[in-house]
Amino acid sequence: MLHHKPLHVILYLLGIVALSVVYSCEGEPIEETSEDRPPNVVIMFVDDLGYGDLGIYGHPTIPTPNLDRLAREGQRWTSFYVASGVCTPSRGALLTGRLPIRLGLAYNETARRVFFPDSGGGLPLSEITIAEVLKEKGYATAAIGKWHLGHLPQYLPTQQGFDSYYGIPYSNDMDATGTGWKLEKFFEPPNINYWNVPLMEDDKIIERPANQHTITKRYTEKGIEFIKQNQDQPFFLYLAHNLPHTPLFAAEEFLNTTKRGLYGDVVAEVDWSAGQITNTLLELGLAENTLFVFTSDNGPWLLMNQTGGSAGLLKDGKGTTWEGGMRVPGIFWWPGKIKPAIQTGIGSTLDLLPTIAALASSNLPQDRAYDGYDLAPALFEGKASPRDHMLYYRRDEVCAVRLGPHKVHYITETEYHRDNQYTIHDTPLLYNVEVDPSEKFNIAEDHPEVLEKVKALVEKHKTTVKPVPNELAKKL
Amino acid sequence: MLHHKPLHVILYLLGIVALSVVYSCEGEPIEETSEDRPPNVVIMFVDDLGYGDLGIYGHPTIPTPNLDRLAREGQRWTSFYVASGVCTPSRGALLTGRLPIRLGLAYNETARRVFFPDSGGGLPLSEITIAEVLKEKGYATAAIGKWHLGHLPQYLPTQQGFDSYYGIPYSNDMDATGTGWKLEKFFEPPNINYWNVPLMEDDKIIERPANQHTITKRYTEKGIEFIKQNQDQPFFLYLAHNLPHTPLFAAEEFLNTTKRGLYGDVVAEVDWSAGQITNTLLELGLAENTLFVFTSDNGPWLLMNQTGGSAGLLKDGKGTTWEGGMRVPGIFWWPGKIKPAIQTGIGSTLDLLPTIAALASSNLPQDRAYDGYDLAPALFEGKASPRDHMLYYRRDEVCAVRLGPHKVHYITETEYHRDNQYTIHDTPLLYNVEVDPSEKFNIAEDHPEVLEKVKALVEKHKTTVKPVPNELAKKL
Repeated sequence: MLHHKPLHVILYLLGIVALSVVYSCEGEPIEETSEDRPPNVVIMFVDDLGYGDLGIYGHPTIPTPNLDRLAREGQRWTSFYVASGVCTPSRGALLTGRLPIRLGLAYNETARRVFFPDSGGGLPLSEITIAEVLKEKGYATAAIGKWHLGHLPQYLPTQQGFDSYYGIPYSNDMDATGTGWKLEKFFEPPNINYWNVPLMEDDKIIERPANQHTITKRYTEKGIEFIKQNQDQPFFLYLAHNLPHTPLFAAEEFLNTTKRGLYGDVVAEVDWSAGQITNTLLELGLAENTLFVFTSDNGPWLLMNQTGGSAGLLKDGKGTTWEGGMRVPGIFWWPGKIKPAIQTGIGSTLDLLPTIAALASSNLPQDRAYDGYDLAPALFEGKASPRDHMLYYRRDEVCAVRLGPHKVHYITETEYHRDNQYTIHDTPLLYNVEVDPSEKFNIAEDHPEVLEKVKALVEKHKTTVKPVPNELAKKL
Repeated sequence: MLHHKPLHVILYLLGIVALSVVYSCEGEPIEETSEDRPPNVVIMFVDDLGYGDLGIYGHPTIPTPNLDRLAREGQRWTSFYVASGVCTPSRGALLTGRLPIRLGLAYNETARRVFFPDSGGGLPLSEITIAEVLKEKGYATAAIGKWHLGHLPQYLPTQQGFDSYYGIPYSNDMDATGTGWKLEKFFEPPNINYWNVPLMEDDKIIERPANQHTITKRYTEKGIEFIKQNQDQPFFLYLAHNLPHTPLFAAEEFLNTTKRGLYGDVVAEVDWSAGQITNTLLELGLAENTLFVFTSDNGPWLLMNQTGGSAGLLKDGKGTTWEGGMRVPGIFWWPGKIKPAIQTGIGSTLDLLPTIAALASSNLPQDRAYDGYDLAPALFEGKASPRDHMLYYRRDEVCAVRLGPHKVHYITETEYHRDNQYTIHDTPLLYNVEVDPSEKFNIAEDHPEVLEKVKALVEKHKTTVKPVPNELAKKL
C-alpha cells in the first residue's frame, strides 16, 4: 500500500528522521566527496540506435528497464541531436565539441563517408578531445568500444588523451570476408566470420575476427574494471558499444529474450550494460559524483529492415538530415545533482565537451571555434537549454537548420543505398518540429521571416568555417 | 541526495519504522475496505488520442506527467486495441464486451459510420453494459462525457445502467452551423458557435451550444463530485472526454502551455483530469480499492493535420485497420493490486467487461457471445494475457486479424476523406507486429502456415456472428 506514493510525499511524511537514517546508512556524508574532486564522467555511446528504440522513448516490444529508470531518475532529452547522420563525423563531434566540417571529417564527392579499413586519415591530433581536457585535470581515462576516428597507430585513442583502449577500431561490418559486403549477409543468421574485424588492446590486435557474440559483455566488464580500479581518483570512461549496428550479435543469455527479435535482444543487452555500469557506480558510492550520459551516434539504419532500428514517430533514419537521422535518445543521470525532468529543449552531443569542461573547471583554449554549449543551466538549475539552434550537415553542406521550434530544409536526400534522390529546395521547406515532429506539414509560405532569420544564421556560421584537409579522403 | 533512490531501497533502509509512520498517516488500515466490498471502477475514455500522444508512449513535446506516473505505478499496455477504428462501434464494444457486428453497430454501404444528429438508432437495450452488470451488484453508476450510442431518449445512458448522465451525446464536431461541416473550420481558431452541440444532464439539454472551452474541466469536476458522493458504496464512473477530438478547446489555464500547440494543450488538460480523478481516489483512501483504466476510442484523426494526433511509430490512423487506427494507449492503475509492468501481451477494450464482471463476482448471462477475456492473470498475477488474437473490423468486414505476433491483412483501405483506396489482397499481407510494429515488411511468403491458421480462425469466428438489425442505418 505504499509503493504507489510519489517519493516526495513519502519524504514529507517521514520527515527528518528518515533523512538521518539514510544519511547514516551511506557512511560518509556525500558532500565530502563532491567537494574534494571534480566529478567522474561516463559517456555510453551506442551505434545506430534509433530515437524510438527504448521503452521510455515509446518502443512497444524492446524492454529497456535500466535506461528507462535512469531516464526517470535523471533527464530524458526529447530533442537531442548528433552533429552528423553517420558514424565517424558524429564521433569526432562528440569528442571535440566541434562540427565535423572543422575536423576534416565532412565528406564530399572525393571522400568516403566514414573511415574504412583502407583509410589513412584520422581525427587530427591538433584537436582537443574530452579525454585530453580531463587528462590535464588529473583524470584517469579509458576508451572502450568502437573508435572509428582513425585506426592507424597515430590516431588511436591512446594518442587522443585516453590512457587505454580496448575495442574494435571501426564498424563491426567492415573487413568483409569471402564475397564481400552484401546485404544478405546481414539478414542471415549472424556469423562473426563474415567480418574480419580486429579487437584491439591499446595499439595491438588481440583477436581477429573479434568474437562479437561476447563483445557487449566484455566491454561492460572492462568498463566496470576501469571504474573499480580508479575509484579513488576522478575518471572518464568513454564506453562506445559497437552494437546495435548490424551485423547483430548478442550474448546467449539475451538471445530470444525479446519480442522484437534479434535487434531487441541486442538492445536489451546494451540496456543491461547501462544497468551494470550505473549499479557499479551506486555500489561504490560514486554515483553522486558521476555524470552518466547515454546516447547514440545517429539514427536507425533503415536499410537493414527488421534488423535495423526505428526512429519512432520521426521521419527517415541514418544518413539523412530528417529528424530520424540525427535526433537520438539522450539520457543524463547524476543522482542528487541533475534535476529529474523530461527536457524538451535542444541539446547535442556537441555540448558534452563544454559541459564537461566546465564541470572540471577546465579553461578550453580559445584558438578555435567550438559548436557546443554548457548545458549546466538545463541539467542542474531547472532552466532552459542554452542551445537554440542546430545545424544538420550532410557531406560538407548545411542541408537543414533548426532554430527554436522551426526547421528549414535546403537540401533533402534519401538514405544511403536507397534509390538516391538529392533535391535542392529553391524555396526551402519549413516545419515546426515541436508541433509536427514527423515533418509532414510544410509551413514555409506562412513564415518568410523564419526563412530570412535562418538564412542569416547560416551565412554567419559559414564565415566561421575555415578550410582544412579532408581526413576522409586520405588513403593508406 | 535522497530523491534519486528507488523507493524500495528507501523502504528497505527505513524498515518497519517508516511503514508504521505512513500507515498511521492513512488512518484506517487499507485491508478493512478492500475485504468489505467489490472494487470501484473508473474508466477514463478519451477521443481520438493516438498511440504516440502521451509522454510515456514517446511523444517528444506533449507533457503528460499524471498519466506517465499512473502508467509507471500500474501497467502500461503496448498492444492494447479497440474493436473499431471509429467512435460509435468502439464505444459500444467497450461497454458490452462484444464486437460491433453483434451490436448492429457495424456499418456498410447503407449505414453511416457513426451516429449523427439525424440518426434514429442506438445501442440496443437488450445489450448488457458494464453499468448494468455493476448496477445489479449494487454499484452507483455515472456516465460523464461523450455517449455516441444513440441520443434519442430511449438510448441515453440512463437507459443503459447509468444512474445519471452529464455530457455531449455525440461528437463535438456535429450539428455544424452556417456553412456546414468544413475542414477549414477545424483549422481556424476554434469557435464553439460553429457546432451547435448540446450538453445534456440525464435526458435534458441544459446548454447549447455546449461551452467546449470548459467541458474537460466540468466533466472532471462532475466526476470528482460523483466519487465523493458515493465513497461509501461501490461505484462505477465512466468518464468519456469529448477531447482531443477536433475541434479542439482547452481551458484558459492550459492554452499555450505546451510546445505541441493546441493539440498538446488539450491533451495536457486531459492528463490533468486523470491526475485530479486519481488524486481524489488517493485522498479519500479509495485508490487501493479502485480499478482505474485509461484508454482512447481509436487512433489519431490524421485528416486534421497539426490539430490531429499521432500514432507514434504505428502506421496510419483513425478509421483504418493498420495498427495506428486501432492500437491505443492502455493504462491500468490500482495501487497495491496491479503488478507494475510494461505489458506487451494483447489486450482490448473488449476485455474490460469480463474483467470487471469477474472483479464484481458477476455471472454474465450465457445467452450471447462475448468477445472479451478476463485480464486478471495479466493484471494481478504477473501472468501472460489470456488474449492471443484480435480481429480488426472495418464496416462489417474482417479486414485484418492479429494472432500472437502475426497480423494478416485481407483488405486495406486509406482513412476517411483521403483519396479512397480499397484493396482486397488475394494473397493476404502478413506482418510480425512485434518485430515490425510499423507494418513495413510483408512476410506472407515465408509463413503460409500462419495464413492458414488465421483463415481458420476467421471462419470459425464468422459462424458465431448472427444477423442483427443495423442501428447505424436507422433514420429519425
